[in-house]
Amino acid sequence: VGAGPGDPGLITVRGLERIRSCEVLVVDRLVPPELVEEAPEDTLVIHRDDLDQDAVNELLVKLGRDYEVVRLKGGDPFVFGRGGEEALALAEAGIQFEIVPGVSSIAAVPAAALVPVTHRGVSDRVTIASGHAADGSEPDYDALARQGGTLVLFMALQRLDRVARGLIGAGLAPSTPAAVVSRGTLPDQEVVTAPLDAVAEAARELPGPALVVVGADIGQSPRTTR
Amino acid sequence: VGAGPGDPGLITVRGLERIRSCEVLVVDRLVPPELVEEAPEDTLVIHRDDLDQDAVNELLVKLGRDYEVVRLKGGDPFVFGRGGEEALALAEAGIQFEIVPGVSSIAAVPAAALVPVTHRGVSDRVTIASGHAADGSEPDYDALARQGGTLVLFMALQRLDRVARGLIGAGLAPSTPAAVVSRGTLPDQEVVTAPLDAVAEAARELPGPALVVVGADIGQSPRTTR
Repeated sequence: VGAGPGDPGLITVRGLERIRSCEVLVVDRLVPPELVEEAPEDTLVIHRDDLDQDAVNELLVKLGRDYEVVRLKGGDPFVFGRGGEEALALAEAGIQFEIVPGVSSIAAVPAAALVPVTHRGVSDRVTIASGHAADGSEPDYDALARQGGTLVLFMALQRLDRVARGLIGAGLAPSTPAAVVSRGTLPDQEVVTAPLDAVAEAARELPGPALVVVGADIGQSPRTTR
Repeated sequence: VGAGPGDPGLITVRGLERIRSCEVLVVDRLVPPELVEEAPEDTLVIHRDDLDQDAVNELLVKLGRDYEVVRLKGGDPFVFGRGGEEALALAEAGIQFEIVPGVSSIAAVPAAALVPVTHRGVSDRVTIASGHAADGSEPDYDALARQGGTLVLFMALQRLDRVARGLIGAGLAPSTPAAVVSRGTLPDQEVVTAPLDAVAEAARELPGPALVVVGADIGQSPRTTR
């Protein structure tokens, strides 16, 4: 079950139903605490923070044989959420499961900040990437710079200076509009907009989690908030 | 308010609350009818099918001055949903509004079909594009082919043969795994997987709306359904 981008009102109706009737709830650090409180009183709540991914897969397979388990993940389980690995482990073990998608921060966080990621006539594609590549190395800045649409970056705040320099080095104009949305959809959401070459400095004191949006669409934003 | 990808249980808790208390409900063709039925009995329901975008903007501005209006859009309002234009019109007119994001078909539809769009170690980025470019011309196949991650295409089913040939012409291997998810998340969902050079033929009889996914991740799918 995807918990959504942070605001507890942004879980799906079905997701909330599943939480309210589960026997075991396995949660990530980024899941809103209000949602954990929706589980029945006698539900076993397991915080997975200290477990590696293999241990989580094993836990789901073991508990899934005997209990109604909800695996509640921040954002959407299948977008940088490693939901695919967990689904694969369950499928291989022959455990039945259902996927209840969530509102992904990809679109929700820019929307909450009034930064649309597509805008007719301005951008007809969007690329979503992690600030860390799959193998832990640097993102492929050349591929990201030449894709030509809006760029939405997860997990890029801590290394934004490096990422911005990488994108500029790969050919993006230093004046490309950029925005950082910190704690998007939450009451303490903050948005900083700046040209790409100045955005890291402008966002230096923002707390995470944050999403970084780079591209022409940011100029179409009806307003920005702080 | 984003209505989600099709299944009425996938609207957010807050989105459903807003529908249940609105005075005017402006809906698109792709909105699940079950959600329209959740509006109070005396709510004025306006189907926008025959209105162009300017007329919709004007309608929202006019009605928004005097009524609690919910603008319910299929999927997510800000991902290929032209929500940005409507928000801009409201902001310019000084009308207060709130954005309630929805579950985007980007992630929900592949997830419902067990086709994750990212998979650690396989793909660390995903590009989302329309089968039609912003100005109505062909998509930029070169940019799409060289982006290197998973590709998710909206509105591409009707011209899939053309799109597949465009991507192969721009350098994607004819054997690249591809999937078409027709009516994703709905009870009559169908999934067809095939190599890119055969996917248009394989999906020829599928009804829309459909999402096309191209890339290595499809090979990680725990199973495919039909």
